[in-house]
Amino acid sequence: MREREIIELFLKEVELQGDLPLGDDAGAIKLGNAWIVVTSDMLVWGTDVPPIMTPEQAGMKVVIMNLSDVAAMGAKPLGFFFSLGIPRDIGEDVLRGIAKGIGRAANLYRVPVLSGDTNEGRELVIDGGALGLTERPLLRSGARPGDLVCVTGDLGRALAGLLTWKKGLNISPSIRRSLYEKLLEPTARVEEGIELGKVANAAIDVSDGLSKELHILAEMSGVRIVVEEDRIPIGEGVQEVAELLGFDPIELALTSGEEFELVFTVSPERVYELSFDFSIIGRVDAGKGVYIERGGRKERMPLFGWEHFAEGLL
Amino acid sequence: MREREIIELFLKEVELQGDLPLGDDAGAIKLGNAWIVVTSDMLVWGTDVPPIMTPEQAGMKVVIMNLSDVAAMGAKPLGFFFSLGIPRDIGEDVLRGIAKGIGRAANLYRVPVLSGDTNEGRELVIDGGALGLTERPLLRSGARPGDLVCVTGDLGRALAGLLTWKKGLNISPSIRRSLYEKLLEPTARVEEGIELGKVANAAIDVSDGLSKELHILAEMSGVRIVVEEDRIPIGEGVQEVAELLGFDPIELALTSGEEFELVFTVSPERVYELSFDFSIIGRVDAGKGVYIERGGRKERMPLFGWEHFAEGLL
Repeated sequence: MREREIIELFLKEVELQGDLPLGDDAGAIKLGNAWIVVTSDMLVWGTDVPPIMTPEQAGMKVVIMNLSDVAAMGAKPLGFFFSLGIPRDIGEDVLRGIAKGIGRAANLYRVPVLSGDTNEGRELVIDGGALGLTERPLLRSGARPGDLVCVTGDLGRALAGLLTWKKGLNISPSIRRSLYEKLLEPTARVEEGIELGKVANAAIDVSDGLSKELHILAEMSGVRIVVEEDRIPIGEGVQEVAELLGFDPIELALTSGEEFELVFTVSPERVYELSFDFSIIGRVDAGKGVYIERGGRKERMPLFGWEHFAEGLL
Repeated sequence: MREREIIELFLKEVELQGDLPLGDDAGAIKLGNAWIVVTSDMLVWGTDVPPIMTPEQAGMKVVIMNLSDVAAMGAKPLGFFFSLGIPRDIGEDVLRGIAKGIGRAANLYRVPVLSGDTNEGRELVIDGGALGLTERPLLRSGARPGDLVCVTGDLGRALAGLLTWKKGLNISPSIRRSLYEKLLEPTARVEEGIELGKVANAAIDVSDGLSKELHILAEMSGVRIVVEEDRIPIGEGVQEVAELLGFDPIELALTSGEEFELVFTVSPERVYELSFDFSIIGRVDAGKGVYIERGGRKERMPLFGWEHFAEGLL
């Protein structure tokens, strides 16, 4: 079954949902004037952890991917928690590395570790979760015609880094460093998320690639999104990797997942209230679908999937 | 590595903890006058789901075991959430069963499903989690000399049921039904937990057997616990299974895990405030250790482990 079919199957069987419909970056429940958001996101060793990632980096990543979901809800993180599935023959050094990574990320983002659970399993699995607090949850469905479409940071380095490693590309050490930094030690946009909770109209984090996230925003908000190719912030070294492999660098940037940047929409009147760096990449119109303006022409943006680049790689 | 060593390793590396120290039934964070409790508990298909358990029962169980942890904190459950690790070749019927079970338990306990996450993995894993709310978290460390030691429901049927199935015991259908009910469709003591949050001094849920939970309560509270053999509520059919296998029924009841009953301590002055059924099984004294009075003699209660009965079974 495909992921979409599995999600549909669960949505059908689960009647009693929270104070927000299922399908956002996190779930939420209202307590007085505040919203508690909660998310869980699993790292499966065999599927999600490339061999160049250290156990400590994997431990950090499981914290970061959950804090990123809380940030995409415009919430301040309150705490992290986790469950481990551990094979019997696992090395102590692997577990210590994961523990160090979780501890390091918790310190870095000043987020307490609330709870941990250990279990025996055939495969190493770390399921992380995070709680957050906001007075105004930021939804995927909040984009309005007239909004600007914006993104934090840059895009493409996570996938370019993975391709560099998989294909053994010959690139300069400084570019490799830039790509691997994003692939192995990404940043959760925690402070940005808290600010966006007060100002933006919609947000989503880049887990599955900008193209997919824009399609989700457009569909869930019932709007059209138009982005300009020249405005997409392509990360350092992505161009070089795309050239070496004969790919379009824009497609690579639009496809790259696990970037943990925040895509958000905000009204032009309020965009000046934001204190952090970001790129304005397009606008929200009435209508539907996602479009890209390339060289003066507006065309539909394909729903780029990771498979496009991954063929024969995994 | 043993579970205890793994937990020690994580405790060493994780500096920043919540508003309660790690090591209780759930973690917690204080928001104004309220405490939000959060727990996660993983069901690994190969390890935790016996072949006689249906996918729907497994889905229910993952909700129940998490609500039980929330109840043991004296909290009202606010919501359930989950992450799935799903092998590619899994049957749609298995996933539909799990979804139905989660939906059914959520309806039964009136707890909304807040969030779900799907992932690819080599082994089927359901990691559940729950949020709860209380003004007074009930800790494992709160037992005081003079308290009564109490337990909800009865004990032993979960393990007796598992042994019945594993050994193919020849017992009457009505006893088998009673045992399998507890093994396959246990109850989370949600209402009892909410009441206990207002009245009791300490609580823990029976996940690993009464003997182990009493040892944890005694150690974390810095007290001695003395229980009377004759007062331990042994479930229907446990005696018969123990006789057939040549075991002591009390040992079987003390060892049986995943019972999801609540063990709690409460002052004798306040015990009358509780409106539900329970058994008073002993008392809290000054000192340390766990003791059992059998036939007029007081002896140390061994820390019964599941291994005692499981030898050659798994």
